This record gives sequence, C-alpha cells and structure tokens, in this order.
Amino acid sequence: MRVDDELRERKRAVEDELGRLLGRRDSPLYRAMRHATLGGGKRFRPLLLISAGTALGAGLPPLLPFAAGLELIHCYSLVHDDLPAMDDDDFRRGRPSCHKAYGEGLAILAGDALLTLAFEIMAAAPLDSPYSERRASVIEEIGRRAGGEGMIDGQALDILHTGQGMDEAELLDLVDKKTGGLIIAAVRAGALLAGASEAQLAALEEYGRNVGAAFQLRDDLQDAVPAGRQGGGPSPGPSFVFLFGEAESRIRLGQHVERAVAALDVPPLRSESLVRLAERLLGPTEE
Amino acid sequence: MRVDDELRERKRAVEDELGRLLGRRDSPLYRAMRHATLGGGKRFRPLLLISAGTALGAGLPPLLPFAAGLELIHCYSLVHDDLPAMDDDDFRRGRPSCHKAYGEGLAILAGDALLTLAFEIMAAAPLDSPYSERRASVIEEIGRRAGGEGMIDGQALDILHTGQGMDEAELLDLVDKKTGGLIIAAVRAGALLAGASEAQLAALEEYGRNVGAAFQLRDDLQDAVPAGRQGGGPSPGPSFVFLFGEAESRIRLGQHVERAVAALDVPPLRSESLVRLAERLLGPTEE
Repeated sequence: MRVDDELRERKRAVEDELGRLLGRRDSPLYRAMRHATLGGGKRFRPLLLISAGTALGAGLPPLLPFAAGLELIHCYSLVHDDLPAMDDDDFRRGRPSCHKAYGEGLAILAGDALLTLAFEIMAAAPLDSPYSERRASVIEEIGRRAGGEGMIDGQALDILHTGQGMDEAELLDLVDKKTGGLIIAAVRAGALLAGASEAQLAALEEYGRNVGAAFQLRDDLQDAVPAGRQGGGPSPGPSFVFLFGEAESRIRLGQHVERAVAALDVPPLRSESLVRLAERLLGPTEE
Repeated sequence: MRVDDELRERKRAVEDELGRLLGRRDSPLYRAMRHATLGGGKRFRPLLLISAGTALGAGLPPLLPFAAGLELIHCYSLVHDDLPAMDDDDFRRGRPSCHKAYGEGLAILAGDALLTLAFEIMAAAPLDSPYSERRASVIEEIGRRAGGEGMIDGQALDILHTGQGMDEAELLDLVDKKTGGLIIAAVRAGALLAGASEAQLAALEEYGRNVGAAFQLRDDLQDAVPAGRQGGGPSPGPSFVFLFGEAESRIRLGQHVERAVAALDVPPLRSESLVRLAERLLGPTEE
C-alpha cells in the first residue's frame, strides 16, 4: 500500500535524524539519552507533524527538525514518567527503562537533556523564508502544549490521582493534556510551519484531540489485557477501561477515530497519511 | 552607589516578570513551580544577561523575557539537583527544597515545566526588528549551554564522580560546564540580542568563564564553613576547597575576578554593572 510506504520512508528519515543528533557526543549522559530514544518507538508524533505539514504543501526538510524535536520531548517524558517517584516502571519497549539501565540520577538528567536538546535543535534548524519567520510560533506552540498547562499538567493530575476515582470530565481533561498535548502540538506545529489558515489549524486541533483520546483508549485497553504488556503490570493511575469497562471503551475508540477523520473535512487536509495514522489506532498493532 | 541602585531596579524587573509568568495559573504544579522560583534568589544570571545587553546598547524590554527564561532554567536545575537521586538536599535558600514541600514526583514535573516554560516564553516574547531576527540564535545559545554538552553534562560528571577524587583539569571542565554554562550563556545571550561582534562575544565568554569559576570557588568556600550553610551539610561532590585547600581557593577566586574584569577590555563592555557583578563575588554576601 502506497501510503504505508510513504509513512515508512518518513519514519526512516526521523530515525536517521534522531541518530545523527544523538550520535554527536559520547558520554554517559548521551548513552542514557540514546538508550531512551533509539531502538524502538513508533514515531507517531513526528509522523503526524510531517503528515500535517506536507498535506498543506511544506517539504520534508523544514519539517524534520521539528518532528525530531517533538520525538525528543516525547522520549524525555517517558524517561521521567517511568521513574520510581512517578509510574515506577522497570521496562519500556521490552527493555530496561532508562533509570534501571543508568540509575535514577542519570535518567533524570538524560530526560532534562533530551528536553533541552529538542528546543536547541528547533532553534538551530536551518530554515529559509517563509519557514524561518514561522519558527518562533512553532516553538511556542510546542512549548505550551508540552508544558505546565499541557502534557506536564496532565502527568501531574495523573500522579496526584493515582489510586483515586476520577469522573469522566476529569479523566477527559487529563487525557486531553497528557496524551493530547503532544499530539495536538504535532499536527498544529506541522500546519503552522506550512502557513495554515485558522480554519485549518482548528480542524487539525479537533483531529488531534480525537486522535489523542483514541490513542489513550487503545493504550488503556492494551494495559487491561495482561498478555499485551511486557513487564511492569498495568499502570495504577486513572484509566478509561476502569471508568467505562472494556466494551464501552472499544466503542469510544472507534468513535474518536471516526471524529478525527471527519475533522479533516477542510481542504486539503484529508490526506491519505493523516487518515491512515488515525485508522491505525483501530488495529491490534501499528508498525 | 548608583550602579547598585541600577542593579536593584533590574532585579525588581526580573522579579516582577517571574511573578507574572508563574502567577498565570493555579494548580499544584504551578504552586510547586512558584515555590522553586519565587521568594529568594539573587537573580545573578538575569542581571548578567541584562548588563551585557545594555552595555551593548539594547533596551530592557527585549532582554527581560530572556533574562526571566534563563532564571527559570537555573531554578529548574536546582530543583532537580536537590532530588534524593542527586545531591539529596532537604533545604534550599533556608526553606524546604521543592521535593520536601511537594513530593518527588511533583518536584520532577515542576522542574520539567520550568524548563519548558523558559523556552516557551523566549519563543513568545514580542520582539521588533532587529531583535526578532536574533531570537533563534539566542534560544540556540541558551539551549546548547544549558543542555547535555553544557550544564547538564557538568551535573552528570558531578554525580558520577561523587565520593571520588578528581584532578584539576577534570574539576575545571566540570565547573566550566555546570556553573559556567548558564553564566556564559547569560552574557552571550544578552550580547547576541544586542547584535554584538565576534570580538565582543569572545570577550564576554572569557568574562563568563572566569565569573563562573569565581562563583563556584566562592560557593565551595562557603560550603566549607559550616556556619555559612543552612541545612543539608556540605555537598559530597568534587570541590575546589577539597582539591586546593581554603587559602589557595581564596587566591584563585581573586584571580578569576581579576581576569573577568580584564576580559571586559573590549569597548564598550567595561560597564559599571558587569564589573560590579564580578566584584560582588569577592564580598561575603551579595545582595
């Protein structure tokens, strides 16, 4: 299938960029950063960023540094989330989590360094006009959605509610920030770089919000099935499956994917790759 | 003294900016971020940034967001350095450290959010030409010196060497990154925003490197005197006083301050405030 080939090619470009960025030094810190970033990962958020940008006419080269930056932010968040003071996960992608492999101190620092590197490379990306004029707004967008009003606030709500009940509105707010934050940032960042209109940005935000909810539903469903999880056991935090049950969670997952695809009804957003990335969430595994 | 009044006024502007930025939300996370940032702090790095920028003709308004951003980065680094997995300090500026007041999980997240916010506000700062064209290079500079090749690598070297000996070259490299990183970034960022020449940037880097070494010598000397330290006891990591002894450390502190001031011999850098900020390191306390 052509769209899957295209996505595979873009994924390879992201992998190459990440390998290049993280290969530039050899130190215990950089080894921990590589452990946390390379070797695994679906690169879902970079693919969303690139797909949104190319749907609106941007080329791959100006999008790539931001796609890689976003993935570094995602990877740092996993390193810190896995720490004993947070979700306390010993495994990640079937390998020891960063603090199990390198110790807690170095894992905290590796996360910090990945986050810092993300902003450094976005600021340093060689961009021509008109992309260069859009750089600051893209960095701002990613910072806002990844920060204390977005993803990090979602994680804070998560750890503060561990073991406690949560109603639907609270859980949706948490997921909207924790999972939706970077996903919405991905599509909006790609679109901002491509010079999107307000209507296009709003449509992509609606797409991203629904993709984020579907992503989390799928994750919670997989956590609820012991065989589907490697090590660590289910996360103790709030979960859709705990709140709605499995059957209802599956129905909602389908609805969010439908709504995500419907949101693309603003030309020229209905690209095969944005549709495909949303629909992959319905399958048992994505590549 | 006029230069002290000027520095006091700039410090107040930085405090106001930090209070404004961190006052925009009320959540457990933001409370932890405010705890880590407000109420104390000499704002040494912001004052360096503003003093370098104004020496080269920039006004305060375009410098202020970067000065505040740099201080947020400094404060996040203190929160993470104080964690049990790192220096394990229960007190900071005479108050409970962030993780003692808010728990480890929220402290890690508050640090992450301060770091992210720093880049967000630097990207979002309303800047006119020619400052707007210099924004990306300033963010890159700060990211590089604060990241895994600068400050964070210094902290990684520190925790990896805790309890072990270190020779002079290793310790100087560590201090150059860990303490010097943000201090050099401060003066270079202010200078870059003001459109400095390469010669001016190089002079300020030399100034910053010596101010960083002096700063660390002073810190180590204070740590070595039990009465001068509130809670926590001396840091177990490598230290100048451990390596050189107290008398030699005092001599070297004076030499670095002298060299810092001498480095300003590139017009118009020898401003009263840059001289004063370096010389304050010779006194028992700075304001």
